[in-house]
Amino acid sequence: MGGDYAPANEVAGALEALRQTNNEFEVILVGREAQIKEQLSARNAERLSYSIVNADEVITMEDSPTAALKQKKNSSLAVGMQLHKEGRGDAFVSAGNTGAVLSASTLILGRIKGVSRPTISAFFPSEQGVCLLLDAGTNVDCRAQHLYEFGVMGSIYAKKIFKYENPTVALLNVGEEKSKGTEIVQEAYKLLAAGKLNFIGNIEGRDILKGKAQVIVCDGFVGNIVLKFGESVPSFLKSRLKQFAGQSLMKKFIVGISRNSLRSSLKDMDYEEHGGVPVLGVNGVSIIGHGGSTPKAIKNMIFKAVDVAKSQINKHIEEALAPSSQAANGGTQYAAVS
Amino acid sequence: MGGDYAPANEVAGALEALRQTNNEFEVILVGREAQIKEQLSARNAERLSYSIVNADEVITMEDSPTAALKQKKNSSLAVGMQLHKEGRGDAFVSAGNTGAVLSASTLILGRIKGVSRPTISAFFPSEQGVCLLLDAGTNVDCRAQHLYEFGVMGSIYAKKIFKYENPTVALLNVGEEKSKGTEIVQEAYKLLAAGKLNFIGNIEGRDILKGKAQVIVCDGFVGNIVLKFGESVPSFLKSRLKQFAGQSLMKKFIVGISRNSLRSSLKDMDYEEHGGVPVLGVNGVSIIGHGGSTPKAIKNMIFKAVDVAKSQINKHIEEALAPSSQAANGGTQYAAVS
Repeated sequence: MGGDYAPANEVAGALEALRQTNNEFEVILVGREAQIKEQLSARNAERLSYSIVNADEVITMEDSPTAALKQKKNSSLAVGMQLHKEGRGDAFVSAGNTGAVLSASTLILGRIKGVSRPTISAFFPSEQGVCLLLDAGTNVDCRAQHLYEFGVMGSIYAKKIFKYENPTVALLNVGEEKSKGTEIVQEAYKLLAAGKLNFIGNIEGRDILKGKAQVIVCDGFVGNIVLKFGESVPSFLKSRLKQFAGQSLMKKFIVGISRNSLRSSLKDMDYEEHGGVPVLGVNGVSIIGHGGSTPKAIKNMIFKAVDVAKSQINKHIEEALAPSSQAANGGTQYAAVS
Repeated sequence: MGGDYAPANEVAGALEALRQTNNEFEVILVGREAQIKEQLSARNAERLSYSIVNADEVITMEDSPTAALKQKKNSSLAVGMQLHKEGRGDAFVSAGNTGAVLSASTLILGRIKGVSRPTISAFFPSEQGVCLLLDAGTNVDCRAQHLYEFGVMGSIYAKKIFKYENPTVALLNVGEEKSKGTEIVQEAYKLLAAGKLNFIGNIEGRDILKGKAQVIVCDGFVGNIVLKFGESVPSFLKSRLKQFAGQSLMKKFIVGISRNSLRSSLKDMDYEEHGGVPVLGVNGVSIIGHGGSTPKAIKNMIFKAVDVAKSQINKHIEEALAPSSQAANGGTQYAAVS
C-alpha cells in the first residue's frame, strides 16, 4: 500500500507476474482488502494464484520510518513483513517508504549472524555492463568493517543474481594508491585486500561508468550522493537539448532524433527493468522498489524476489562472514555491532 | 613546465593572452630558458610584454607533491611561486601536478588569517547556470568548521568572479532535513545557518545539475568522487551512442547528428572556457589548471588570474573569517588549525 500508485500498480504487476509465469508461485497481496478487490475486479484475475491478507493502515512516504513502524502496527508493511518472518511467504516486496521498509526488514527479520549493518545496493550502467554500488544510502557513517562486509555481500549478490563469475570488487576512493582517502577507507582497503574477494583495489569516481569494477564499495553518504547525481543526468541532458532545440526549427528536428537515440542508448539505466534491490544482510528476502514503480517494475520486483529467495544468498553471506572465515582472511577480528 | 604539453601550450597561451588584451599585463614565463625561447621563436612574440625567469627543474605529474617540493628547489613551480610571494608577480598560474601546486601555494604563500584549510573548487554546469562545488578533493577529512569556511570562501568567489549577486550556498547531503547526514555534516549545517551567508540548507546529489544552489559545500572525498563521476558522463554517452550507431547505417547517421547537438548543449562543461580554479584561502593568487591544458585553456587561466588578483577576494575572505565576524555570526568560536 505504500507505493505512489498503490494498490493499482501493485495489483497489476502481481497479476502480470503470475500470468507470465503461469502461476509458478503464489502472491499474497497485503493491504486494504476493499481497495485490493476493487483493483482485482477491474482486471482479469481469473485462475491466477493470489490471495489477500487484510491490513488497514498505510505507512506513507512522509512518515518517519521508525515512528511509523511503532505507531502503525497494522500497516501493510508490518503485516507483510511479519508474514514473511513467520514463513507464510518466502519473500517480501514493497515500493513504499524506503526507510520504513529498511527498518522493518532489520527489526522484524533480524540481521544475519556476522553482519554488522544491513545494506542496500544501487545499479549503475557502465561500458562493461551493469555494476553494483553499495551502500546506496542506508549507512551514512561507516567503519572499515562495515565497508568490508558490504564488499562481501555485494560480491555474493553479483555472483548469485547477476551471474558474474568472480565479481571484481573495488573501493570507491579519491585515487588508486592504497594510501589515499580517509583513515577509515584506508583501513577498509586492508580488510578487503586480506579477504577472499576478487578485490581490485581503489577506483575513482570516473571509473564507475567505465565499468572498472562489478561491485563498488563506499559508505552510504557518498553512495547516496553519487547515485542521485547519476539519476539526475538524463533529465539534465533533456533540459539542455530542449534549450538547444529552442534555437531553430532545424535544431528542434535534430534534437527529436537525438532524444530517441539517447533513450535507446541508455535503456539499461531504466529502473523498471531491474526490479528493485534486496536489503542485504537480513534474515529473509526483502525487496525495495522505486516509490513510483509501474506495474512492469512491480512485476520485475516480484521476479527478483523469487530469484533472490531461490539463490540462498543469505546462507552464503553467513558463511563468508562467520568468525572462522574472517580469521582465515588475515587474522583481523572485529566485533559485529551496529 | 609541469603541464602535459609544457612549455609549448603555456607559451602559446601566454602570448595569445597578451595579444588579445594588447599587453594589458606582463607575463613572466618561468622554466627552462632554452626550451621557452625555442617556443617563442616558433611563434610571433614581437611587441608582447613577457619576460623569462630561468628554472632548471621540473616537477612531473608522477612526483609526490611534498617530496618534490623539498627535493626540487629550483623547479619552475617553486621559483614561480616564490616570485609571486616576493611581489614580483601578482598571481601564479600552472597546469602542473595539482597536489604540488596546492602544497606550494600553502607552504610558500601561507594561509589567510582565519582560514583552517585552503581549498579548491570545481565547476558544475546546471539548468540554472554554472555552480561551484567545494572542496573538490583537497581535504578528504573535514571538520564542521572546515566546511563552514568552504562555504564562506566559495560564496565570496562566486560573488566576485562569477558576479552572482547574493550567491545561494547549500550543503551537499543525503536529504533535505537538517537532521540528515553524519554528525560533522549536521554540525556544519548549524554553522552555515548561523553565518551571514545566503544559506539555503541541504541539497541532494540530484540537485547539483538542477542548479538548486550556486555554491555547494562538501568534503573533498565526496567532492572529488562526484566531480570525477560527472566528468566521465560525456565519454560514457559517447561510448553508448557509438554502440547504438554500430547497429545500422541509419542509426550511425542519427548519432552523427546527435553528437553535435549534444556537444553544443554541453559546451559550458568545457574546462578550457573556465580557465582553471584558484586555490582559495592562501595569501596570494594561485590558479591551477588541467594537466592537458590547451593554449586556449592557458590563456583563460591567465585571464582568471588577473581577474582574481583584481577582485581582492583574499581581503574579503580575511574579513569574513575574522574572529569578530565569526562571533557575530552566532557566537560559535573555533580554533583555526588544520
